[in-house]
Amino acid sequence: MTASSTDPTAFTPTREDRFSFGLWTVGWQGVDVFGGAVRPVLDPAEAIHRLSDLGAYGITFHDNDVFPFDASPAEKEQHLAPFRRALEETGLVVPMVTTNLFSHPVFRDGGFTNNDRDVRRFAIRKAADQIDLAAELGAKIFVAWGGREGAESGAAKDVKDALSRYKEAFDVLGAYSEEQGYGLRFAIEPKPNEPRGDILLPTVGHALAFINELERPDLVGLNPEVGHEEMASLNYAHGLAQALWHGKLFHIDLNGQTGPRYDQDLRFGAGNARGAFWTVDVVENGGYDGPRHFDYKPPRTEDMDGVWESARACMRNYLILRDKVRAFRADPEVQQALLDARLDQLAQPSLAAGETVADLRAESFDPDAAAARGMAFERLDQLALEHLYGVR
Amino acid sequence: MTASSTDPTAFTPTREDRFSFGLWTVGWQGVDVFGGAVRPVLDPAEAIHRLSDLGAYGITFHDNDVFPFDASPAEKEQHLAPFRRALEETGLVVPMVTTNLFSHPVFRDGGFTNNDRDVRRFAIRKAADQIDLAAELGAKIFVAWGGREGAESGAAKDVKDALSRYKEAFDVLGAYSEEQGYGLRFAIEPKPNEPRGDILLPTVGHALAFINELERPDLVGLNPEVGHEEMASLNYAHGLAQALWHGKLFHIDLNGQTGPRYDQDLRFGAGNARGAFWTVDVVENGGYDGPRHFDYKPPRTEDMDGVWESARACMRNYLILRDKVRAFRADPEVQQALLDARLDQLAQPSLAAGETVADLRAESFDPDAAAARGMAFERLDQLALEHLYGVR
Amino acid sequence: MTASSTDPTAFTPTREDRFSFGLWTVGWQGVDVFGGAVRPVLDPAEAIHRLSDLGAYGITFHDNDVFPFDASPAEKEQHLAPFRRALEETGLVVPMVTTNLFSHPVFRDGGFTNNDRDVRRFAIRKAADQIDLAAELGAKIFVAWGGREGAESGAAKDVKDALSRYKEAFDVLGAYSEEQGYGLRFAIEPKPNEPRGDILLPTVGHALAFINELERPDLVGLNPEVGHEEMASLNYAHGLAQALWHGKLFHIDLNGQTGPRYDQDLRFGAGNARGAFWTVDVVENGGYDGPRHFDYKPPRTEDMDGVWESARACMRNYLILRDKVRAFRADPEVQQALLDARLDQLAQPSLAAGETVADLRAESFDPDAAAARGMAFERLDQLALEHLYGVR
Amino acid sequence: MTASSTDPTAFTPTREDRFSFGLWTVGWQGVDVFGGAVRPVLDPAEAIHRLSDLGAYGITFHDNDVFPFDASPAEKEQHLAPFRRALEETGLVVPMVTTNLFSHPVFRDGGFTNNDRDVRRFAIRKAADQIDLAAELGAKIFVAWGGREGAESGAAKDVKDALSRYKEAFDVLGAYSEEQGYGLRFAIEPKPNEPRGDILLPTVGHALAFINELERPDLVGLNPEVGHEEMASLNYAHGLAQALWHGKLFHIDLNGQTGPRYDQDLRFGAGNARGAFWTVDVVENGGYDGPRHFDYKPPRTEDMDGVWESARACMRNYLILRDKVRAFRADPEVQQALLDARLDQLAQPSLAAGETVADLRAESFDPDAAAARGMAFERLDQLALEHLYGVR
Repeated sequence: MTASSTDPTAFTPTREDRFSFGLWTVGWQGVDVFGGAVRPVLDPAEAIHRLSDLGAYGITFHDNDVFPFDASPAEKEQHLAPFRRALEETGLVVPMVTTNLFSHPVFRDGGFTNNDRDVRRFAIRKAADQIDLAAELGAKIFVAWGGREGAESGAAKDVKDALSRYKEAFDVLGAYSEEQGYGLRFAIEPKPNEPRGDILLPTVGHALAFINELERPDLVGLNPEVGHEEMASLNYAHGLAQALWHGKLFHIDLNGQTGPRYDQDLRFGAGNARGAFWTVDVVENGGYDGPRHFDYKPPRTEDMDGVWESARACMRNYLILRDKVRAFRADPEVQQALLDARLDQLAQPSLAAGETVADLRAESFDPDAAAARGMAFERLDQLALEHLYGVR
Repeated sequence: MTASSTDPTAFTPTREDRFSFGLWTVGWQGVDVFGGAVRPVLDPAEAIHRLSDLGAYGITFHDNDVFPFDASPAEKEQHLAPFRRALEETGLVVPMVTTNLFSHPVFRDGGFTNNDRDVRRFAIRKAADQIDLAAELGAKIFVAWGGREGAESGAAKDVKDALSRYKEAFDVLGAYSEEQGYGLRFAIEPKPNEPRGDILLPTVGHALAFINELERPDLVGLNPEVGHEEMASLNYAHGLAQALWHGKLFHIDLNGQTGPRYDQDLRFGAGNARGAFWTVDVVENGGYDGPRHFDYKPPRTEDMDGVWESARACMRNYLILRDKVRAFRADPEVQQALLDARLDQLAQPSLAAGETVADLRAESFDPDAAAARGMAFERLDQLALEHLYGVR
Repeated sequence: MTASSTDPTAFTPTREDRFSFGLWTVGWQGVDVFGGAVRPVLDPAEAIHRLSDLGAYGITFHDNDVFPFDASPAEKEQHLAPFRRALEETGLVVPMVTTNLFSHPVFRDGGFTNNDRDVRRFAIRKAADQIDLAAELGAKIFVAWGGREGAESGAAKDVKDALSRYKEAFDVLGAYSEEQGYGLRFAIEPKPNEPRGDILLPTVGHALAFINELERPDLVGLNPEVGHEEMASLNYAHGLAQALWHGKLFHIDLNGQTGPRYDQDLRFGAGNARGAFWTVDVVENGGYDGPRHFDYKPPRTEDMDGVWESARACMRNYLILRDKVRAFRADPEVQQALLDARLDQLAQPSLAAGETVADLRAESFDPDAAAARGMAFERLDQLALEHLYGVR
Repeated sequence: MTASSTDPTAFTPTREDRFSFGLWTVGWQGVDVFGGAVRPVLDPAEAIHRLSDLGAYGITFHDNDVFPFDASPAEKEQHLAPFRRALEETGLVVPMVTTNLFSHPVFRDGGFTNNDRDVRRFAIRKAADQIDLAAELGAKIFVAWGGREGAESGAAKDVKDALSRYKEAFDVLGAYSEEQGYGLRFAIEPKPNEPRGDILLPTVGHALAFINELERPDLVGLNPEVGHEEMASLNYAHGLAQALWHGKLFHIDLNGQTGPRYDQDLRFGAGNARGAFWTVDVVENGGYDGPRHFDYKPPRTEDMDGVWESARACMRNYLILRDKVRAFRADPEVQQALLDARLDQLAQPSLAAGETVADLRAESFDPDAAAARGMAFERLDQLALEHLYGVR
C-alpha cells in the first residue's frame, strides 16, 4: 500500500532525494517551430531559489543559460555573480554542467562533427571553457548532448569520418580535464533525431559502443533521457539496465514522452506511466548513484504558476513511484511470483563452473515437457500494475 | 547515366556479385498471426537450384529449415543428403548458417536468455550442433538472431542478468568453435521488438556495445537487417557505417520496410528507396567484404511464380542501385558538391598533430561570419536523388 | 481514494458490468510468424464456462472460431450444439459476432475488396451466412474487421475502386439484414497496417467518413480497438470521443499496446496505462452504452493458467480504472481545476445566439492580456495522474 | 524511359504546371525549439520575384507572413502594397490563403477550440479578416490548419465540446463567406501531433468525417500534407485517394518526411521516394484539379542559395515523377501486369445489377482452387520501381 495522501509530508522532496533540474527546463520560454515566447525570461537566481523552496538539491545549466553566447569575460562574470550568490543562499549544488553547441547559427551543422573544421575547433574550445566553469563550481559530471551532430541527407555526412571527429573531441576534452586535474566524468546523451533528420549516436547502445573507442573510455559514460529512447520505440528501463551492466550510467534525464513523435519533454510521470514505474525500479535498485535529474519542458499552455506546478510534480511523481517500487519489491506475493517466473534461475549461470558443451550434450532434456511449462509472467505483471494503481 | 534497360545483360547477377538468400525466405509459406500457409512446402534442393539459376552464389539456413526439430541423427542426414547434393550440382556455397531458437514452444521465453536454465542449456547445445554443421559445410559466419530474447513486461526479465546469460552463451560457443578449430565468426542480428514486446540488444548500437564485454570480442560482430533498424526509426546506412567504424560489419541482411510497424521483410528496394541507395553506397564503398544476403519474405499475396519474381528483383535492385551509387560517386558535379559541403574538411582532424586546447583558444574566430556560411547540402542531396531517379 | 484491496469483493466483475471476450482471445494458441502453437486447442464450450465463472456476461466469435472453414451444414450444427448448450448453462449472451475473412488462403488479398471478383462474392456470402447465425443467437452487433483489405504496394490496389467495392459489400449486407428483419447494426474495426502493408479504412476517422457514403449509414458505426489506433500514434480516447460525437460508437475492443509497432494485443491496462484511464473515462462518461469487449492475446509465454489470469486481469483493471475515473470526476479539487482550465467555457458556444462576425469585430479584445493567462493544465493533469496512482 | 538530362528544358516548370509555394516556406528563418534564426528576413516581394523566376505560378500566405500580428489597417496596407505590386509585376496568382492561429501566445491553447471563449471569438474574427483579403486577392481556397487545436493531457480538452466549437467556427466562417458572395472553398489540413501532444482531426479520415457534420459540407474539403499523414504511419497516396473518392480533395501540401518523428517538412521528393511516386500518380490520374502546392522547410543548414536550390528541386522532382508515372501507366507490360493482378476485376461491381445474397449462395465456388491463384503483385510493383529508378 502506498503512502496515504492524508499524510501532508508524504511525497515531499528533501535534499537527500537529490533532485536536480536544468535551468533551461523551468526557464523555457516556449519558443517552438510554430510560435514565439509565451513566458518571460526567468532570472537564473530566481529559478535557483524557487527550486530550492520546492525541495530540489541541485541545478544544472548550459553556459548560455546563464550568460550570452558573445559575453566578454567581464560580462560572463557579471551574470555568474548572482548565480553563485543564489547557490550560496540556498545551498543548492551544481552536480552537472553542459555546453550549448546547438543554438547559435554557427552550429547549424553541429559542433564536434560539423563539416566545417573551424567550427569544430570553436566547439571544442567552447566546451573547454565550460569545463573550467564546471570544475570551478564543483560539478562532477559534464553532459554532452550532440543536438545537431547529424544530417538530413545521405551524402552530407560521412558517418565514419564524423565518428572519428566525435572521438577526437572527447579525447581532447578528456585529456584537457585530466591535465587540469578536474576529475570530471563525461556523460553522452543519445537522441535519435530532432532537430536533425538523423543524429549520430542515436541510442544508448550506439553511445556505449562509441565510448569503447575513446582514448580514455573510463572517463566517459551515459546520460540517457526517457523521451529520447522512447522516440526510437525503445524501452528506457532496459536501456538504463544495459548501461548499468556496462558500468556506464553516469547521469539520467527524467521526463515523459508518448512514443515516436516530436520530443515532448513532458514532466516526469506524464507520458508512459508504466515505463516510469520500471524506470524508478531500475534507478533505485539497479546500482545507480547519481542525481535524479529532470530534463523536461513545462508545456507552452502554462504560465509561471504552471511551470512551478510541473516542477513540483516531477519530484512528487518520482517519490510516489519510489514508494510503489519499494512496496512491489517487498511484497511477498511478488517475491513468490518472481520465483514462479524463474527469475532466480536467470540469475544463475547456465553452465556450472567447468562445464562445457560436451556436458550439455550428455544430459537428457525433454523439449516437449519443458515447452508445456508456462512462464507465469502475466500474474507477475498484474501484481506490478496493481502496485502502480495503488490497489495493493 | 545508369545502364539502359535495352541491354539485356544489364542488372543480371553473376556469382561474382555474391548474392545469397536464406532458405526461409523463398521457402516462407505465409503463416502469420492471422492466417495459415498459402504456399506449398518448398524443397530445399529445389530452392538451391532455382536460386542458382537466378544468379545467386550462396544459400543460408537455420537448422530446422532443412531438418525437423526432433530429427534423429539419421533423419538429419536423410534431409541433408539432397541438400548437399544440390550444392554440389549447382556450385552454390553456404556462406552463413544460423540456429532456430524461436519456433518450437520450448523457446517461448527465448533461448540463451530464457528464464528457465534447462532451456538455456538446451539452446546452447542446439547452437553448438549447428556450429558443427556450419563448419562442415564451410560456412564462415554464424548468425545469432535473438528473436525471442526479450519480454513483454517489466519484472519478467532482469535485463542485467539476461545480458550476463547472453554473454555466457557467446563465450561458451566462441570457445567451442575455437577449440574445434572451426574459425567461425559470429554475427549478432539486432531487432527492437516483435515477436517480443522488447527484445534485448535492440539495435546495432546495443549489440556493438555488448560485444565489448565478451571474452573474445574479436570473434563476434554484427548482422544488421534493414527493416529491424528502421522499425526503431533508425537510419540503416548510418548503422552500417558505425559498425564498419568499429570493424564489426560481419554480415548484412537486406530487405525493405516502411518505418515503425510490424516486421515487413519486403524485397530489397521496396520500402525505403532512398535508404536503399545509401545502403548500397555504404556497402560498396565503406569497406564491407561479405555476401550480399537477402532476408525478406515474399508477400503472402504471391504464389511460387511471385516468389521467384521477388527473389530475382532483390538482386536486380541491388545491381541497379550499385550502378547508381557508382555513377553518383564518379560524377564531377557531385565531387564538387562534396567539396562545397566541406566533406573534405570532415575527413581532416580538427586539431593538427600536437595541438591542444590552448592552441584553439589562441586563435581568432568570428562566429557570425562562420554562421553565415550555408552548408550546400540541398544541392548535394538533389544530385543524389537525381541519380536515384536515373535522370543524370 | 480507490477501493481498498482489503475488500475481497472489490474489482470483482458481475454480469451487470457487461464484460465480453472474443473466443479467439483466450483461445489463441500462439501461432505467429516466427513460431507455432504453444497452447492446446481450447474447446469453445469450456471457454464459455471459464469466462462465465470469471464474471463475464458475453462471448463473441468469428464463424471459424466455432466450426471449420469447410464445415458442411451438418458439421456446423455439430459444432454449434455444445456452444449453444454452454450458453444456456451459463446464461452468457452473444452480444456480437463477426466473420473470418482473413485466415483462409483464399483471402490472401482480402475479402470485400479482393481484386478477384469471385472471392469478393464468396466473402459477401460467407458474411451473410454469419449474419444469419448472429440473428439466430440474438447478437445485436456485427463487427467487420477488414484484416486483409489493403496492399503492400502502390499499383496493386486502386483505392477508389476498392472503397467502392467495400461500400457495395456493406450496402448488400445491410439490405440483406434489413430484409430479413434482423435489426443488426454493423461496426467497422479500423486498423492501419498488419497483416497488410497498408489497410483500407486505417483509422477511426477514415471509417467514420466512409460510413457517410453508404446507402444506410444509420446501420453502420465503429468498433475501435485500443491498439489499432495507437499503432498509428493516435489517441484512442480522442478517437472514441469523436466517434461518440458522430453518434457512431457501436462497440469497443479493449486491449493494450506500446506505440507504433506490431499489433501487441496486450491485456487491457497493460501497455499505455494513462491512455487506459482516459479510455475508461470516455467510455463511462461519454455516452457509450454497449458491452466492454476485450480483444487481446494472452502472451505466448503463458500456459492456460496464465490465459485465465490475463482474462481475469482485463476485467479487474477495467473496474479499478472505473473506480478511479469516478473518484476523479467527483473530486472537488478536480472540479475546481476544470473550471480553472476553462472547460466550462469550452462547453459554451463561441457566439451567442444570433451573433455574427460583425459582432465579433465590434468587440474589443486585448490579445496580450489574454496571452498572459496560463491554462492551468498541468495542475489538472497532475490531479488525474494522482488518481491513477491511487494516492488521492 | 524518362526524359534525358541532356535535354536542357526537361523538368523545367512553366506556369501551366501550376506550382505554388507558401511564403513561409522559402521565408522560414530556421527558428526551432533548439536554436534561433539562421537566415535573414525574406522580403515577400523578393520571394514572389524569385519564385516566379523559378517557374512557379502561385504564392500562398498566412496573414502574418505579410503583415505583423498587431498591424493597424494602415500598416497592413503598407505591407500589402509591395506584395500586390510584386504579384502584378510577375503575374503570380494567389490560389490559396490561410490564417495564422498558432504563433502568437494568445493561441497557446489553439484558436477555434481554445478553452478560452474570448480567444475563440478573436480567432474567428481574425480568420474572417483574412477571408476578406483572400477574396480581394482572388484566392479560391482558404486553408485551415489547426496547429494548436489539441491537448497534451486528458482532462484539458473535452473532445466532444471541442469538436462542437470547431464545427461552429466553420459554420460561422462558411456563412460569412457565402453572405459576402466570396465563393471561397475551405480546406482542412489534418495533423496528428506537434506542436500539441495530440491534435484534433489528426488524419485525412477524421477531417473527412468531421466535414459531414457541418452546416455546409459542400464548402469544405481537405488539404492533406505528405508529412502529416506519414507522421501517423499512414499512406499519403491512399489518403488522397480516399479524399478524392469523397469528392473532397480541395488542395494539397507536398513535402517530404521519414516516418513517425518530428515534422520534417523536407523538400518534395526527399523523404519517402516511393511514396512520392504514388503521390504524383494519384494527383495526376485521380481527378485532382488544384495547384501543386509545396509546404516544406529548407533545412536550417542552408543559406539563401540553398533555399532557392531546394525550391527549384521541389518542382523539378514533381516533373521528374510526373514523367515517370506517365511512362508507367503507358507501359504495355504494366498494363498487362495490371490485368494479371486483376485490377480490372476490382473496377467491376461484385454483384451484377439486380443480384442479391441469394444469387451468391446459388453459385458454386471452390475456395481451394481460388486460393491457389497468386495475385502477381510483386511483378507489378517491380515494374513501378524500375520506372522510379529510370531503368525502363
